[in-house]
Amino acid sequence: MTTSTATAVAHPNIAFIKYWGNRDAALRIPENGSISMNLAELETRTRVTFDTSFPMDIFDLNGTRQKGSSYERVLKHLNLLRGIRGISTHAHIFSENNFPTGAGIASSASGFAALTLATIAAMGLELTEIDLSRLARRGSGSACRSIPAGFVEWQKGINDRDSFAFSIAAPEHWNLIDCIAVIEEGPKATGSSEGHQGAATSPYQATRVADSLRRLDICRQAIKARDFAALAEVVELDSSMMHAVMMTSKPPLFYWEPDSIRVIKAVQSWRKLGLPVAATLDAGPNVHILCEAGSEKQVEHKLLNIEGIHQVILCHPGDKAALD
Amino acid sequence: MTTSTATAVAHPNIAFIKYWGNRDAALRIPENGSISMNLAELETRTRVTFDTSFPMDIFDLNGTRQKGSSYERVLKHLNLLRGIRGISTHAHIFSENNFPTGAGIASSASGFAALTLATIAAMGLELTEIDLSRLARRGSGSACRSIPAGFVEWQKGINDRDSFAFSIAAPEHWNLIDCIAVIEEGPKATGSSEGHQGAATSPYQATRVADSLRRLDICRQAIKARDFAALAEVVELDSSMMHAVMMTSKPPLFYWEPDSIRVIKAVQSWRKLGLPVAATLDAGPNVHILCEAGSEKQVEHKLLNIEGIHQVILCHPGDKAALD
Repeated sequence: MTTSTATAVAHPNIAFIKYWGNRDAALRIPENGSISMNLAELETRTRVTFDTSFPMDIFDLNGTRQKGSSYERVLKHLNLLRGIRGISTHAHIFSENNFPTGAGIASSASGFAALTLATIAAMGLELTEIDLSRLARRGSGSACRSIPAGFVEWQKGINDRDSFAFSIAAPEHWNLIDCIAVIEEGPKATGSSEGHQGAATSPYQATRVADSLRRLDICRQAIKARDFAALAEVVELDSSMMHAVMMTSKPPLFYWEPDSIRVIKAVQSWRKLGLPVAATLDAGPNVHILCEAGSEKQVEHKLLNIEGIHQVILCHPGDKAALD
Repeated sequence: MTTSTATAVAHPNIAFIKYWGNRDAALRIPENGSISMNLAELETRTRVTFDTSFPMDIFDLNGTRQKGSSYERVLKHLNLLRGIRGISTHAHIFSENNFPTGAGIASSASGFAALTLATIAAMGLELTEIDLSRLARRGSGSACRSIPAGFVEWQKGINDRDSFAFSIAAPEHWNLIDCIAVIEEGPKATGSSEGHQGAATSPYQATRVADSLRRLDICRQAIKARDFAALAEVVELDSSMMHAVMMTSKPPLFYWEPDSIRVIKAVQSWRKLGLPVAATLDAGPNVHILCEAGSEKQVEHKLLNIEGIHQVILCHPGDKAALD
């Protein structure tokens, strides 16, 4: 019997310029580049153990043995990674999120980033950040952005080799806070993997993609210059542009709940009154309110005064995925 | 002293394919054609009296003497109409809507249609429906659609002469019901005249306009064939496409309130369960739920069971603007 184990930690990320739609769904090559910030306070911790005595692969998530599609997706990724080393040894995977499961915070980005890094290490390999990002992308597109540190850009690329993410600014570069207004989900919405496939049915997707280089430039420059007003404008526009594609797809996808709109409109009114804030939503009802350090307590307080908002999670810029 | 008077009645309309953005704001030549249905149960009744002894123009709306922008806009239209006859006699205009003022039902379409017809008649003129529609358009774009009967198409045209609306099906052609879920407005939103001017700032407006011929064709055919499923799909798509333009304009316009989203999502779920319904929103928070006659009581009942919905107005296809 030989055994080897490794543990990795990765953070989810909030997209400033969103990823929606693939030019190659199997390889998860996106139609447009994207930019995000890792979320320091949230993390997935994943331990991978290979042992020649294991009769099968096991995946436990938050203490629950996984079956069905959740298990199959991890297994598929595990097989891809095993193929790199040319092994077929079974693995036990134990993964824990430090964030509440029902809070609608997507764990696939941090999950597949941590799984990729831990598996590679447990197989005794050491890969470049670029190669780790490329591999994480295969498990979940946005996972490639949870490999590098801080503020991250995913260059779309045109094939498996050149579609990966890299850091454009360290976590210390800008003390932005993501104040997550947690909003209860309605009847289970369409998962984002399925949603990506519908993107091309929207009359707006081609326009959104064609305009993405412009938005990426503005966003990248705003981050580098720490220009909050410029960031706020492009982040809100990009979020609305993605949700517009979703809502005009066939079938239409409405991720917004009534409370999402309530928060979006509140944030707009606060900004008009002079508070620098910006709202953005990924493929779910939670509203992520960005602000600079110093305003987060005021934002949190205001959010908790809104009808329907009972939980706010504050997150600083997070580090890269790392072995533990 | 000479006096002459006329009274006209016109109905507001709900747009199936929306009007948003002008190629000529002064003449209200729209960027795209639109299709609507007049709403029989709602009406504006306007009496116009010319009298050589009147020292000034007066405009009373729902019993209140109007001043400021409301008065100025009517005065401007009155001057346009007086110019046709070459008179400068002052007028008293008494206008009443039979729908609640606070209910967010736009009265500019029915208002300017009734004003146009009553003024023309009070001046002793008789114009074709096309010319009445062209003139009403100058007061408020969508008013041109409240001149003809039933289901109406506004051909965009390229100049003042060829931009007018005509009936594509009589009210009796199809017993569609518009069940209006009345939703309280938040802090006063941007008026639609101002909103139209921002349309060009959205990255999606050109795409929306370019795709409009396709949507107009589908909608027109669906009305002619009384194909509710086809109508529902294109109406919901078109509504989302317009609101996407609004939400991605600079500054962004969000007409949706939390209760609007609640109703939109409820309507989507009812349709999935087999009830033929479609939701559409003009430039305001009210949700217009279309269904065929026979379903309206069920729709009304379901709407009134939704949190936040206290009033539902049922409307059948309405007639043309007419003298009273």
